[in-house]
Amino acid sequence: MSDRSGDVARDETTNLISSDKVEGTSVYDTQGNDLGSIHSVMIGKTDGKVAYAVLSFGGFLGIGTNYYPVPWSALKYDTNQGGYVTGMTKEQFQGAPSYDPSADWYNRSTGWSADVDNYYGRHGVIGH
Amino acid sequence: MSDRSGDVARDETTNLISSDKVEGTSVYDTQGNDLGSIHSVMIGKTDGKVAYAVLSFGGFLGIGTNYYPVPWSALKYDTNQGGYVTGMTKEQFQGAPSYDPSADWYNRSTGWSADVDNYYGRHGVIGH
Repeated sequence: MSDRSGDVARDETTNLISSDKVEGTSVYDTQGNDLGSIHSVMIGKTDGKVAYAVLSFGGFLGIGTNYYPVPWSALKYDTNQGGYVTGMTKEQFQGAPSYDPSADWYNRSTGWSADVDNYYGRHGVIGH
Repeated sequence: MSDRSGDVARDETTNLISSDKVEGTSVYDTQGNDLGSIHSVMIGKTDGKVAYAVLSFGGFLGIGTNYYPVPWSALKYDTNQGGYVTGMTKEQFQGAPSYDPSADWYNRSTGWSADVDNYYGRHGVIGH
């Protein structure tokens, strides 16, 4: 539903960022390498809090075209780069839990979020 | 960035919902009338919490084509309807703060969020 023809700055305030802007934004490692981008974010239904960013590497760097959910706290927005920075390396993503975009993985009540939390050592959803 | 060709159920878990699914989802009043849809959501940069849903009425019901930011807490997801329900009426939206989609309103540091919070009597961002 995004319109990228305009100035992206309009999707952002000092405190807030639009889901439109988050989606498609690049993710960099701490060396400044462009690893991939954010496909979407997973939002807690009850607390309205972003729990996971779903990363897409588009087959770059040999990481494959699957979706990689990552705890939101593992990403930090960097205004200079205009994207998110993660402490994860390409090699760490290669071993991370990932899911077929066409499969029903989001809808599985158990499994993936625990696997993801364990892998990254962070909880996407506090208390779950 | 959304792919609506698949089963929408895959964008959802018991606890989480994808930004892909939120965007474009219908908003109903308490009578079940379809008022419009969610264009995007505004996420707090530091707390990762959804503060506002940006509604689009697409000119339906005489409400116009502007964007209407609404505090996220004013919407409740209803699984039966497969959309969000608000206690707001069409008439209340007609008088609500709204912004030109092509303008730089998101990026204004002051003004719109206070106007929106005042109108709906709710805070989009707690503590702001």
